[in-house]
Amino acid sequence: MAERGGAPRRRRQEEPRGGGRGEPSQSRRGAGDAAQPEPDGAPATPDFRCHRLQDSLLSSASGYSNYRGILNWCVVMLVLSNARLFLENLIKYGILVDPIQVISLFLKDPYSWPSLCLVIVANVFALAALHTEKRLATGSLSERSGTVLHTINLLTILCFPALVVLAVNSITPVGAVFTLAVHTILFLKLFSFKDVNKWCRERRRAKGVPAHSGAASGLQRANGDVPPSGGVSYPANLTYRDMYYFLFAPTLCYELNFPRSPRIRKRFLLRRLFEMLFFLQLLVGLIQQWMVPTIQNSMKPFRDMDYSRIIERLLKLAVPNHLIWLIFFYWFFHSSLNVIAEVMQFGDREFYRDWWNSETVTYFWQNWNIPVHKWCLRHFYKPMIKRGMGKWTAQTAVFLASAFFHEYLVSVPLKMFRLWAFMGMMAQIPLAWFVSRFLRGNYGNAAVWMSLIIGQPIAVLMYVHDYYVLNYEGRQ
Amino acid sequence: MAERGGAPRRRRQEEPRGGGRGEPSQSRRGAGDAAQPEPDGAPATPDFRCHRLQDSLLSSASGYSNYRGILNWCVVMLVLSNARLFLENLIKYGILVDPIQVISLFLKDPYSWPSLCLVIVANVFALAALHTEKRLATGSLSERSGTVLHTINLLTILCFPALVVLAVNSITPVGAVFTLAVHTILFLKLFSFKDVNKWCRERRRAKGVPAHSGAASGLQRANGDVPPSGGVSYPANLTYRDMYYFLFAPTLCYELNFPRSPRIRKRFLLRRLFEMLFFLQLLVGLIQQWMVPTIQNSMKPFRDMDYSRIIERLLKLAVPNHLIWLIFFYWFFHSSLNVIAEVMQFGDREFYRDWWNSETVTYFWQNWNIPVHKWCLRHFYKPMIKRGMGKWTAQTAVFLASAFFHEYLVSVPLKMFRLWAFMGMMAQIPLAWFVSRFLRGNYGNAAVWMSLIIGQPIAVLMYVHDYYVLNYEGRQ
Repeated sequence: MAERGGAPRRRRQEEPRGGGRGEPSQSRRGAGDAAQPEPDGAPATPDFRCHRLQDSLLSSASGYSNYRGILNWCVVMLVLSNARLFLENLIKYGILVDPIQVISLFLKDPYSWPSLCLVIVANVFALAALHTEKRLATGSLSERSGTVLHTINLLTILCFPALVVLAVNSITPVGAVFTLAVHTILFLKLFSFKDVNKWCRERRRAKGVPAHSGAASGLQRANGDVPPSGGVSYPANLTYRDMYYFLFAPTLCYELNFPRSPRIRKRFLLRRLFEMLFFLQLLVGLIQQWMVPTIQNSMKPFRDMDYSRIIERLLKLAVPNHLIWLIFFYWFFHSSLNVIAEVMQFGDREFYRDWWNSETVTYFWQNWNIPVHKWCLRHFYKPMIKRGMGKWTAQTAVFLASAFFHEYLVSVPLKMFRLWAFMGMMAQIPLAWFVSRFLRGNYGNAAVWMSLIIGQPIAVLMYVHDYYVLNYEGRQ
Repeated sequence: MAERGGAPRRRRQEEPRGGGRGEPSQSRRGAGDAAQPEPDGAPATPDFRCHRLQDSLLSSASGYSNYRGILNWCVVMLVLSNARLFLENLIKYGILVDPIQVISLFLKDPYSWPSLCLVIVANVFALAALHTEKRLATGSLSERSGTVLHTINLLTILCFPALVVLAVNSITPVGAVFTLAVHTILFLKLFSFKDVNKWCRERRRAKGVPAHSGAASGLQRANGDVPPSGGVSYPANLTYRDMYYFLFAPTLCYELNFPRSPRIRKRFLLRRLFEMLFFLQLLVGLIQQWMVPTIQNSMKPFRDMDYSRIIERLLKLAVPNHLIWLIFFYWFFHSSLNVIAEVMQFGDREFYRDWWNSETVTYFWQNWNIPVHKWCLRHFYKPMIKRGMGKWTAQTAVFLASAFFHEYLVSVPLKMFRLWAFMGMMAQIPLAWFVSRFLRGNYGNAAVWMSLIIGQPIAVLMYVHDYYVLNYEGRQ
């Protein structure tokens, strides 16, 4: 027991020497010694002590807990193992990247451009909505029939392109996805457009301003309704200029006076533009080089229903798929949307929030895609709440709607209705419940990451597999 | 510009509502809102504002910097990708683990146990050293001839087993490594033993105590030289009991009175014992299942000098190799040494320090293997410094010695002298210089990890390749 008493004494003796004894790497050594003095064999100490009564760092008895080195270890391991994967891929398949092939994804027959035509036609719906609103503003159209017209218009926006895609053969899946995406965005924008204008009319009516006088925007400017910043107010906003600014603006929620950035920052714009082009190339490259071969290799196991191999393929696919998703996120939500916003001097650049820290699935869905989230909240969730629906019901409805659009964007272009995307989205509800119920903090965060990394490739494989079976197996 | 002024005002308006609006995932949402209020479309706000002038989180303009989610991402990615690797391995090779094969690594011919014999013979050297010391203590042997005898004894410890290994054919590489390791440890221990006793005699002479009286340990106990804790003092320590306690103690530095732990902690001992057995199995399993096939696959690329494949193999080998090294570290330095120490009630459990945080290569070498580092410092580095050598010279000498022993433990058992291990150790000096010169903090730490993860498999592949070429290519 005397040893225990002895240990601290010896430590105190050594400390001064510890710092002084210049060890090879002075900088770190000095620090190291202050903490734990070097065993010292100098004949000065009583019978040449060089051991002390102490515990190993990793045994719980020593209250040690500094493992910041581990993060660096993780990063190094990740970089190295993925470097290997990529090298292996190059060796196995050679270079598969070719930009020409990309064009063929959009064009099957170089003399018919169905996707482009559809996008051009889309303008009709926008103008229809604008004119309906104009008629409504002047009061030459009743609210009732206005709502009917808008509803018809909006439904057509969704159905028409879908039918065309299903009918026309010269349209490629990729081209179809692009077209349908454009129409979906248009749908959401016009839905918001009609809502906001309706709210304006309601307020005007509440203020008791007669409908017909509304046309004279000069009068409007005069009255106190105009915000201090001096933007347009209700009927004055129903112009082509205003409409098209909204259609191209990187948002889905209409508002009469968007916040505008004071000037176009040249350097910022150029940097984003460069990113936009670079990451687009990278995405195409990664998909051609990494995704496609991996998916093709995973067809056989699927046919044979060889489960261990299916899982192996799934995990193998998860890495490139996740990487591509991350790059896509940055490319679209940061680079591209910022470029558009900068060019249009659109002020609100909040296209995403810190979803990477999300500890619940709900938090992720509320923060990774702000334009859509904003729209759902403003034009779907809150109206339902106002109508006295329960929160969970409303949230489920939102997920249902989003599930519908996911399915719409995948099934129609592939011309097969499998509901994988739909189920994938709906699966989020029980998942969200489970995570928020049982997992906290970092575990919750890890669970969210896990669901992202594993969830997507499952859906992807499902569709690709079915697509192959339909279009290639059939022919053999 | 009015917008800029407007933004903060609007924010202030929204904040209170933000918190109150019960969103689906209440817990996180509340926090989220306080930080960035939800865009609000309630007709209360002047013409239905739902956008604010603001930057994207990832653009430098927004001073955002909370990426703690990334660590979780790293961990998840690592777990998943290695799970895949392991599954792939199982599918490819099936289960290769078999414990019987392990025995064959130690025994070639079941009727001759050369390794064991050598280990038994090792006692002779220990006793020789003890008796020399006894003679020196009583003064019946001159310091001069004592030094000569010790030197001969120590040299024999290194040369004899090496010669036997090279001569006897029935000895397996693994057995040989084991034997040579035992002898190396003995060498270091006896070196320390002779040094400490020499220091004791020097001090006694300085105090002017006549040599022959030293024999009577009773007298010694009486004099003030004895530490308060009442341990033995100089010549009384030269007993078989004392000697063998030192030989089995988990340290290389001799000392007359080792710090002793008060009692054997049963639970601690059992936990460490379990770890010891479990990790040993795991190590064997991983080597058989993961290392061996990977190495065998990497022989062909080496023969063909196909560089891209060599690198691919190297990186593929790096992961299991590193994992095994980490497990080995824990198994040996934490579990095993703690078991021995607990059984012998050896007090000083500092077998390693926080090398995982090391930001310079030197710091790593000074902290991952404390018994050896202690020995080098006490019996090699400091004496050289005392003799007035420069710090860098001394450090280089230490690396040289360590390089020699690394080579000794590898080349002799494999019966081929390639100097890979030697060069590997010597390469640490420029590396250490480079890292400490150019890399700081986390970069230094990452560099150390990198050198560990990449450096080892290179050396391993070099030896294995040469061994294969020698023993298998030759026969074909």
